Amino acid sequence: MPVLVMKFGGTSVATLDRIRRAAKRVGVEVAKGYDVIVIVSAMSGETNKLVKYVEETSPLFDAREYDAVVSSGENVTAGLMALTLQEMDVPARSWQGWQVPLQTTGTHANARIESIPTDNIAAKFGEGMRVAVVAGFQGISPEGRITTLGRGGSDTTAVAFAAAFEAERCDIYTDVDGVYTTDPRICEKARKLDKIAFEEMLELASLGAKVLQTRSVELAMRYKVKLRVLSSFEEMNDAAGTLVCDEEDIMEDKVVAGVAHSRDEAKMTLVSVADRPGIAAAIFSPLADAGVTVDMIVQNISEDGRTDMTFSCPTNQVSRAEKAMEEAKAAGAINFAAVKADTGVCKISVVGIGMRSATGVAAKMFKVLANEGINIKVITTSEIKISVLVERKYMELAVQALHDAFELDKA
Amino acid sequence: MPVLVMKFGGTSVATLDRIRRAAKRVGVEVAKGYDVIVIVSAMSGETNKLVKYVEETSPLFDAREYDAVVSSGENVTAGLMALTLQEMDVPARSWQGWQVPLQTTGTHANARIESIPTDNIAAKFGEGMRVAVVAGFQGISPEGRITTLGRGGSDTTAVAFAAAFEAERCDIYTDVDGVYTTDPRICEKARKLDKIAFEEMLELASLGAKVLQTRSVELAMRYKVKLRVLSSFEEMNDAAGTLVCDEEDIMEDKVVAGVAHSRDEAKMTLVSVADRPGIAAAIFSPLADAGVTVDMIVQNISEDGRTDMTFSCPTNQVSRAEKAMEEAKAAGAINFAAVKADTGVCKISVVGIGMRSATGVAAKMFKVLANEGINIKVITTSEIKISVLVERKYMELAVQALHDAFELDKA
Repeated sequence: MPVLVMKFGGTSVATLDRIRRAAKRVGVEVAKGYDVIVIVSAMSGETNKLVKYVEETSPLFDAREYDAVVSSGENVTAGLMALTLQEMDVPARSWQGWQVPLQTTGTHANARIESIPTDNIAAKFGEGMRVAVVAGFQGISPEGRITTLGRGGSDTTAVAFAAAFEAERCDIYTDVDGVYTTDPRICEKARKLDKIAFEEMLELASLGAKVLQTRSVELAMRYKVKLRVLSSFEEMNDAAGTLVCDEEDIMEDKVVAGVAHSRDEAKMTLVSVADRPGIAAAIFSPLADAGVTVDMIVQNISEDGRTDMTFSCPTNQVSRAEKAMEEAKAAGAINFAAVKADTGVCKISVVGIGMRSATGVAAKMFKVLANEGINIKVITTSEIKISVLVERKYMELAVQALHDAFELDKA
Repeated sequence: MPVLVMKFGGTSVATLDRIRRAAKRVGVEVAKGYDVIVIVSAMSGETNKLVKYVEETSPLFDAREYDAVVSSGENVTAGLMALTLQEMDVPARSWQGWQVPLQTTGTHANARIESIPTDNIAAKFGEGMRVAVVAGFQGISPEGRITTLGRGGSDTTAVAFAAAFEAERCDIYTDVDGVYTTDPRICEKARKLDKIAFEEMLELASLGAKVLQTRSVELAMRYKVKLRVLSSFEEMNDAAGTLVCDEEDIMEDKVVAGVAHSRDEAKMTLVSVADRPGIAAAIFSPLADAGVTVDMIVQNISEDGRTDMTFSCPTNQVSRAEKAMEEAKAAGAINFAAVKADTGVCKISVVGIGMRSATGVAAKMFKVLANEGINIKVITTSEIKISVLVERKYMELAVQALHDAFELDKA
């Protein structure tokens, strides 16, 4: 029988009643003839509670014990989902990560999936079981310790199962009804997309559209898993949600698919850095060692052998970045006049695979922002994305203006 | 290094602060030179919450899924205890049942331990780890599914580890400071015992003194595990608590060690049963099939080929017992005039290994009760125990009178 993967996030299994509603959706797919693999998150709030326990117990925790603790919420929902399905006379059982066994790397708290053996679950499907309920987010390391896949990791569990079982589709049930052209809370003209290309989704996910874990999109793209994002709070419907798929499967020929924004950006500038070969490495190696996630990097034109180096990083990493720079200066690795942090900025991006072949998108974007009187502080581009840093007070205005200019409200 | 097993019950790990206090006790034993195996229960309230989830989801639940759900609370405390010890610079790590692996029978929700391989944990002790924190109450079945050992099962986990590692002692930390001659809430003269024999503890445990799971005492007796019950809320002290040990190790020569009581008893009488060979089997087989836990059984003198059969069972099984009897009658398996239930009774027992060699204990007990005007409804005896059913309103009076008469307040 064809296999379908259905993933339910924390809000979709937050109570016994919601688990029942999710199980009914599973029952509908079983009745259609699918063998279903259900991936469940922990009841919403549970994982946060466990993370708090760990952090209060041990601020610099052993990540192996962190994983042993925080993975337990998914075990509860997996068992309850299996029981709920059994109550509906759907033959089901639960699997924890180690029972599959879902093998991962040994990078605790942020492990990557290495392999998913299918024999065990496939054999049970062969014996008449119709639903395998798998605890998301968890696996085991080469040493046999429990690992977790990072926040949002159940999305990646779902896609990996879909790839391993060559599932017809991977449905991600969440609390939003799909992927939007932009954040509907900021721009009321935001429109739900019926389809979006993997590459676009990847950019949007890494730009802060928190619908899917970035890694799950990468994995879906690599293994050509048809991925659908839909709400567990709306009527079931084969056309519901947003399908994340190959660009060949998308009919629309919009150049820009969406506008993303991120509040959580700070702009850091090293003033008057000696401009010499190797200076970039001398700056960014200590930042990487200090765990600072550098996003955009801009180097100004050099004057008199000195230059300004600007980069962006998450707001809560500013003091860590400053400390790393001062230490590198003290150690004689770099030299600069001052390090300035600007936390009053935000990042606005336009994303679309059509930008590969279209020209003038960047020019249009800059003109739209100029017309609104918005000054651009930093620019970076990729093949299918243009991002700018602007003052945070202009965030809503910039998003709305760009959404209008690229006519994203029109299908 | 010598091994010590320390078990902490739910109230002893109810909060992060209590886990820290428990970890300090572990640290003291490590400093003395012990390698320690810590067995933890779930934070108090957690297991009840999970059981409730399961029962609400599926009243006639699949016990395999029940076990997968309710075992998760222990995983949380095991990880948190390991982290707490690490914070105190004590090398520690957690083990879940499947990681040991603690092999059990396949009797889900009430499994028995089959084996505990020691290589894995012993090797870590060899590498410098000082504390192995093991999630109590759980194991895995021959099919690789998670099993649990029944309520109070962490006591049994602790004793089984002590036996497997030939531990010097197994300390059960709980919310009472030891085993008493009787319930201190009923009899203010109750005295904490420094030592009690395995056989006596076994009788007291099965009579409703809820300090230890009965099976843990059986196991300790079989493998000669020195078992100590003590409070995690009092100062540490080598003489604290009550040592459960071989009778040879007990100096006191008291005939009676304690007086136990149980409110949760009902007296059932089948009136005018045909007295013929096989009648007991015809009555008690259907009761066993219905899951009724029959305790005392008394058959009255037969008259005219008919007799009255009386037995006791837990109060909440009365309607189940009545139903089983009526069905057996309807099926023609037995014949009786009426089935009467008396739920206004309680069971009072005196227990002591000295009763094996002493005479007159039963006579003294009956005389004491008669002097207080308490009528005895049913009597049963074993080698080291005499139990009677009396009206429940006399419970306190009976316990206090017997405690006085056998001078249990005197060491």
